Amino acid sequence: MRGFFIGRFQPYHFGHHEVLRRILDEVDELIIGIGSAQESHTMDNPFTAGERILMISRAIEDMDVKKRVYIVPLEDIYRNSLWVSHVRSMVPPFDVVYSNNPLVIRLFKEAGVKVVSTKLYRRFEYQGTEIRKRMLNGGDWESLVPKPVVEVIKEIDGVGRIKDITNKDV
Amino acid sequence: MRGFFIGRFQPYHFGHHEVLRRILDEVDELIIGIGSAQESHTMDNPFTAGERILMISRAIEDMDVKKRVYIVPLEDIYRNSLWVSHVRSMVPPFDVVYSNNPLVIRLFKEAGVKVVSTKLYRRFEYQGTEIRKRMLNGGDWESLVPKPVVEVIKEIDGVGRIKDITNKDV
Amino acid sequence: MRGFFIGRFQPYHFGHHEVLRRILDEVDELIIGIGSAQESHTMDNPFTAGERILMISRAIEDMDVKKRVYIVPLEDIYRNSLWVSHVRSMVPPFDVVYSNNPLVIRLFKEAGVKVVSTKLYRRFEYQGTEIRKRMLNGGDWESLVPKPVVEVIKEIDGVGRIKDITNKDV
Amino acid sequence: MRGFFIGRFQPYHFGHHEVLRRILDEVDELIIGIGSAQESHTMDNPFTAGERILMISRAIEDMDVKKRVYIVPLEDIYRNSLWVSHVRSMVPPFDVVYSNNPLVIRLFKEAGVKVVSTKLYRRFEYQGTEIRKRMLNGGDWESLVPKPVVEVIKEIDGVGRIKDITNKDV
Amino acid sequence: MRGFFIGRFQPYHFGHHEVLRRILDEVDELIIGIGSAQESHTMDNPFTAGERILMISRAIEDMDVKKRVYIVPLEDIYRNSLWVSHVRSMVPPFDVVYSNNPLVIRLFKEAGVKVVSTKLYRRFEYQGTEIRKRMLNGGDWESLVPKPVVEVIKEIDGVGRIKDITNKDV
Amino acid sequence: MRGFFIGRFQPYHFGHHEVLRRILDEVDELIIGIGSAQESHTMDNPFTAGERILMISRAIEDMDVKKRVYIVPLEDIYRNSLWVSHVRSMVPPFDVVYSNNPLVIRLFKEAGVKVVSTKLYRRFEYQGTEIRKRMLNGGDWESLVPKPVVEVIKEIDGVGRIKDITNKDV
Repeated sequence: MRGFFIGRFQPYHFGHHEVLRRILDEVDELIIGIGSAQESHTMDNPFTAGERILMISRAIEDMDVKKRVYIVPLEDIYRNSLWVSHVRSMVPPFDVVYSNNPLVIRLFKEAGVKVVSTKLYRRFEYQGTEIRKRMLNGGDWESLVPKPVVEVIKEIDGVGRIKDITNKDV
Repeated sequence: MRGFFIGRFQPYHFGHHEVLRRILDEVDELIIGIGSAQESHTMDNPFTAGERILMISRAIEDMDVKKRVYIVPLEDIYRNSLWVSHVRSMVPPFDVVYSNNPLVIRLFKEAGVKVVSTKLYRRFEYQGTEIRKRMLNGGDWESLVPKPVVEVIKEIDGVGRIKDITNKDV
Repeated sequence: MRGFFIGRFQPYHFGHHEVLRRILDEVDELIIGIGSAQESHTMDNPFTAGERILMISRAIEDMDVKKRVYIVPLEDIYRNSLWVSHVRSMVPPFDVVYSNNPLVIRLFKEAGVKVVSTKLYRRFEYQGTEIRKRMLNGGDWESLVPKPVVEVIKEIDGVGRIKDITNKDV
Repeated sequence: MRGFFIGRFQPYHFGHHEVLRRILDEVDELIIGIGSAQESHTMDNPFTAGERILMISRAIEDMDVKKRVYIVPLEDIYRNSLWVSHVRSMVPPFDVVYSNNPLVIRLFKEAGVKVVSTKLYRRFEYQGTEIRKRMLNGGDWESLVPKPVVEVIKEIDGVGRIKDITNKDV
Repeated sequence: MRGFFIGRFQPYHFGHHEVLRRILDEVDELIIGIGSAQESHTMDNPFTAGERILMISRAIEDMDVKKRVYIVPLEDIYRNSLWVSHVRSMVPPFDVVYSNNPLVIRLFKEAGVKVVSTKLYRRFEYQGTEIRKRMLNGGDWESLVPKPVVEVIKEIDGVGRIKDITNKDV
Repeated sequence: MRGFFIGRFQPYHFGHHEVLRRILDEVDELIIGIGSAQESHTMDNPFTAGERILMISRAIEDMDVKKRVYIVPLEDIYRNSLWVSHVRSMVPPFDVVYSNNPLVIRLFKEAGVKVVSTKLYRRFEYQGTEIRKRMLNGGDWESLVPKPVVEVIKEIDGVGRIKDITNKDV
């Protein structure tokens, strides 16, 4: 059985990591879709798709996963009615979708695809919004993401980027 | 004389219906443009263009209209300066525009087209926003739209769609 | 049962007309999709969507059709894998597709939709290409299209347009 | 040395004018990029690119500039990661960027381009937002923009446009 | 009177130069539109819009023109029916169009704009196609373009680019 | 050192396979970019990006590769001058590009990226065009692609798709 898990991963954090671990217990292969792949350099979407691929693949490597994982960036198509077809054309066929986004869940259900809400799997909430806010304000964000993600963000000066693009004091 | 009447019709309601009846007294043929045709599955634009075509054409059938009515979905072009040309290329030629949207009125006026504000025709306000809110909260929305529209929305489980896509509790 | 019939209709001719008559015997309602709606002013696609709506609706009026016919312009989406979803979002639901285009047939079949090849219905071939060539070269094109189509093309100076845009001698 | 200065110029005002004068002391040639060129007829972006070209070129003419100035409209590309390449393909090569927009500054810096913050040059603040608000409310906007800009805005009835598109009382 | 002259200028050559000189005798101000501005690095469109701006503005400088000339890159809009509105939104208002392209002439005529065919002005034919072929094959292209254009093309290694992108022997 | 190798892989064949093996000897990590990812269901591009991901990842699995390989679909951006930035935003950073496409080579060279022509690695020519022609005509295509690719194509009825979309005899 092949599963599909989608998120924006801005950045990839322990919330995603925990969900992923649970999903990997249930499927034979997993596709991770990186949503809004074309976005970057904004407060909501600071990292490029390439940077997010790097974060996720290194974080997963640490997990010592034995199952095949496909990581696929997905550009926005800006039309909800086409989105499921867009996803299906861009990734290998899948049997079940994992998501906690109400719109994603509804769109796949209308298309007749089995969906599992990932809400069930999450014991802790690590939200991207909170992490990005801490990056901006000098708070502790490093404890909320896997170690390899910390490294990627440092390599690309991710914190500097977030501070620069929100700079009111140029 | 051929008229052009534009709206998003999310959904088509008695406010539109009343305006339409008045316009039909004045024109020989009427074009109904469905704006933001590519939008669907959001709180502001829950219904697809196809669903809206169905609502409008059935509601009009009930009216026993003797004049020719064209119903044409119009995708957004995202450039105000091109919008009038876009509309003109997608629908048959028309002599007068009926609208209560200030931008629409201005754009057609700059292009030298005669515009009639539909504000004048409306005795009652039935706003799409209010109807969608009632759908979400279980209020009485059915009395605000023509009967055939109620039927279309039930056929496609429109209320379920609105509830699902706004679900905070997945 | 609702059918869907698609073409570019550059222009609408007796070949389309004959197919339409046959389809109308089989369905309760018919959707006519105007493909490549955004194209115009080229040798292959001289007429705008609005002009084609006018041709088709007038030609059908002459037929004295008792069944409901929806005429819907469809802009190209430039991605075959999304095309069926695009069509479905823009028109009312349908049960069967009528087409003689191999790609259209394949795409709907992969989506699990019933398709009928219109090849079967055609006794005579009236091709748009031939008609456009005759318009350019002063040949008899008028006998190949319904009378109301001749009128629309004359109103908009369609022949002049085709001659102008191919003019080598400016 | 060729400089690049970017703004939306909705409208071109004395704040821009002052910055421009300073930049022209430092460079041999200057490129003025008009951002969001495709936008018009909104409260934030009332004027077309063509109208803004007219404002800027006439205002500069008054300055009696001896150096070559290129005025280039730039359409949005909607992808921050491609924006620097987009600019570079649309304008002549440049050595230094002048901007006070944090995102613009960051994007050029990541691309290795020298950037000068124009904050340093500005003694007075003339903000487009304030000017557009005054146009709407009948305040004194004319003292905040160069005389030729007043003329262009009057020619095109710019104040009428802003009032019309925000009209709540149609 | 303000004129509008459009071309792709791949590259700007003596044919354009001669036409320009004639037009400048007739108008008070001239807008030069650079078509297909987003294209570059192909055999048909080797040069970016920025490079073409450079060629044209330097070539005109040599002419010692006393009249105001606006050089404006125009991205393709891919819809003939919107093209005139697109041009009008991107450049200052104009009274007459100069072109030898049949489609351009037809589109402006349908929009009610006065058009002058530049065919009349051309005594010699210098075609972009021929010049690009000579660049590829090592022929004499330099005598067909103004001297400043030769310089720009050498600065950017334009000949090397054309040879590289058509290289069958990588 | 991380390498980037791009192709359309319609389908992935022994020519690609051989080149890949050579590249993997030289790099520490490899990114495989799937070009024209949005294309499918045409004679030139019959397979979706998702299907091509499946072909490549299974074929590579057979190789028993010890190095990390990223497989990333890349949608066309339709502007050569933005293409390198597009690629860079969508994939992890890379040090060297492997390609035999002249345009790709030129674009990366202009951007200052090291490029290696894969022509050097190829002893045998297996061209996608030839393989697709054999699929259409019933020739032996199976010996030209790795076994797992044969399986994927059979699972999705790839040969049936190619025959259907080119069918002149509907």
